[in-house]
Amino acid sequence: MRTEHHQAGAGEAPAPKPVKKNYIRPLDIKHGRIDMGHGAGGKAAAQLIEELFLAAFDNEFLRQGDDGAVLALPAFDPAEGRLVMATDGHVISPLFFPGGDIGCLSVHGTVNDVAMSGARPLYLSASFIIEEGFPLVDLQRIVQSMAAAAREAGVPVVTGDTKVVEQGKGDGVFISTTGVGVLPPGVSISGRNARPGDVVLVSGSIGDHGVAVLSQRESLAFETTIESDTAALHTLVAAMLAAAPGAVRVLRDPTRGGLATTLNEVARQSGVGMLLQEAAIPVKPQVDAACELLGLDPLYVANEGKLIAVVAPEAAEAVLAAMRAHPLGQDAARIGEVTTDPHHFVQMATRFGGRRVVDWLSGEQLPRIC
Amino acid sequence: MRTEHHQAGAGEAPAPKPVKKNYIRPLDIKHGRIDMGHGAGGKAAAQLIEELFLAAFDNEFLRQGDDGAVLALPAFDPAEGRLVMATDGHVISPLFFPGGDIGCLSVHGTVNDVAMSGARPLYLSASFIIEEGFPLVDLQRIVQSMAAAAREAGVPVVTGDTKVVEQGKGDGVFISTTGVGVLPPGVSISGRNARPGDVVLVSGSIGDHGVAVLSQRESLAFETTIESDTAALHTLVAAMLAAAPGAVRVLRDPTRGGLATTLNEVARQSGVGMLLQEAAIPVKPQVDAACELLGLDPLYVANEGKLIAVVAPEAAEAVLAAMRAHPLGQDAARIGEVTTDPHHFVQMATRFGGRRVVDWLSGEQLPRIC
Repeated sequence: MRTEHHQAGAGEAPAPKPVKKNYIRPLDIKHGRIDMGHGAGGKAAAQLIEELFLAAFDNEFLRQGDDGAVLALPAFDPAEGRLVMATDGHVISPLFFPGGDIGCLSVHGTVNDVAMSGARPLYLSASFIIEEGFPLVDLQRIVQSMAAAAREAGVPVVTGDTKVVEQGKGDGVFISTTGVGVLPPGVSISGRNARPGDVVLVSGSIGDHGVAVLSQRESLAFETTIESDTAALHTLVAAMLAAAPGAVRVLRDPTRGGLATTLNEVARQSGVGMLLQEAAIPVKPQVDAACELLGLDPLYVANEGKLIAVVAPEAAEAVLAAMRAHPLGQDAARIGEVTTDPHHFVQMATRFGGRRVVDWLSGEQLPRIC
Repeated sequence: MRTEHHQAGAGEAPAPKPVKKNYIRPLDIKHGRIDMGHGAGGKAAAQLIEELFLAAFDNEFLRQGDDGAVLALPAFDPAEGRLVMATDGHVISPLFFPGGDIGCLSVHGTVNDVAMSGARPLYLSASFIIEEGFPLVDLQRIVQSMAAAAREAGVPVVTGDTKVVEQGKGDGVFISTTGVGVLPPGVSISGRNARPGDVVLVSGSIGDHGVAVLSQRESLAFETTIESDTAALHTLVAAMLAAAPGAVRVLRDPTRGGLATTLNEVARQSGVGMLLQEAAIPVKPQVDAACELLGLDPLYVANEGKLIAVVAPEAAEAVLAAMRAHPLGQDAARIGEVTTDPHHFVQMATRFGGRRVVDWLSGEQLPRIC
């Protein structure tokens, strides 16, 4: 049944076959073990979450299935807004990479998860798990980077916790951040809202973050340094929502698993298909070249400062214009559209006139990329 | 300058000397490294937080200095209440111990941090960092325990994240949880609010959690199994607040560093001293015996289902009665009072009629106890 998985780059696929089940077989909880693929953001990760975590924690908020949960605050009038909460663990290796480090990344990642609901991020918490022997000077550099990112985003770290584990029981530092924000009344943005005919937008070039981290990890030097795109996207989101109120249906930041996996998630959540135009997807030439060298497909490479938006067709131009007018959306592009597809496939019209299925990331492409 | 540190059990101390500085010397950021003591919740941990984390993140919310931050929600009327946010990383070893596991602990720990502000805990997020190779059956057991604890507490896990690290770069599973809750209007509970003449209460026997975990870790068998006291304390808090509105000034759960360290934190935050009565502090005989065997002082051993309260003297009996009427406060006791002391010492009248300083935990007593 591995034929279900068309890894991008595997060539043109014929008309996709119907998929009866989401996964090949259920998790073998009795004998199974966690592997790196369970953390890579692809199908194995989704399966672990559904069959183990959702099965245990099941509630209406988790079932929303988005990166942030939209919550009711009983003491408050919901007409004033709702609370949004999102959390993200950061285990990136190496801790310092071109364009950023685990500190600013842990602010951006969670600010973005809150922002992708349409909410205004307000506060962050931070939990540090530090390995014994970690140099204080590195910890300070990370914490200062985090503080600078929080200041720049206008989202303060208001509470935290620090734990230390013995040498060999951790890896430098792991940072879990949680963000809360307020969703204005009337805003409804979710991976469940895409409709056939909607337009798919991306805020800029893809693959920068993953390639920057992997280059550092593998000590690869390219002619030009590729920098991570790590950035807080909440002001970009605010500009998009202001440009066409009610027209933005889905927002998602394509981190682990990249653009391909994120769009597959949305297709499944919304019960739709998608048709992308390969030629329209922005990839920097040096990222493209590095991906070729590393055997990666940029569609599956993590981003930390990009978003995808699914937008009502009549508002697509207005939203795109608002994105391009923002410093973090200058290279925004229209990359495809939402289709009717009972199999919820993401397909792509290739540069060469063919069409192929862009499947979920299966297994692990880049471990510890965020 | 080590004489500043009177480890409990070191014998009677004369009248304490004035302390000019909080710490012996500032952190050596340039050459220093993280050691296990930085995670033990004592003076070294407090120093790390102040000189490195607070220095970078400085803001009005962090400066509250409590385990949860009390926040304003701009879109909402503060007369309806305020938001409280708290976070806690859990790295306990072993993952399973008598009376609990990392799963229920990670719910209780954060529910309690929110509750100690007087807030009603509403929602939790959970970030899992899992080591490659970890058995799925153990993960399921942990997640189910967490879900059961969340259900029992009435505080659902509404969003989460899962990361996987390579074998040897983690230790089974680490769980960071964040909680939010709503603080009713007019409630003001903080470590800064203790006043001379106030009464210090504890909700039950101390040291159970730390001794249970350490016994498991060291494979010690005692005649009776000592179980962790891990429990969610928010309904106990609600009962206490209802019994004497406005009279509870400080609430704190004495986790890492135990009762002694927690009271020292409060004494410093409020700028007061404390005088405890050793004979009044409830310690189970088997915990006392195990502590003797292990060379521990129960005053410094972590608790996960106990709270200390500083209460206005005229309301102390009413609050104590409310505690004793609650299943988690049956053994509640009045253990001391708040004094005027420019040096912010916690002192204790011993069983033998002497008086000694109960200092902060210095360095590490029990690593990875929560």
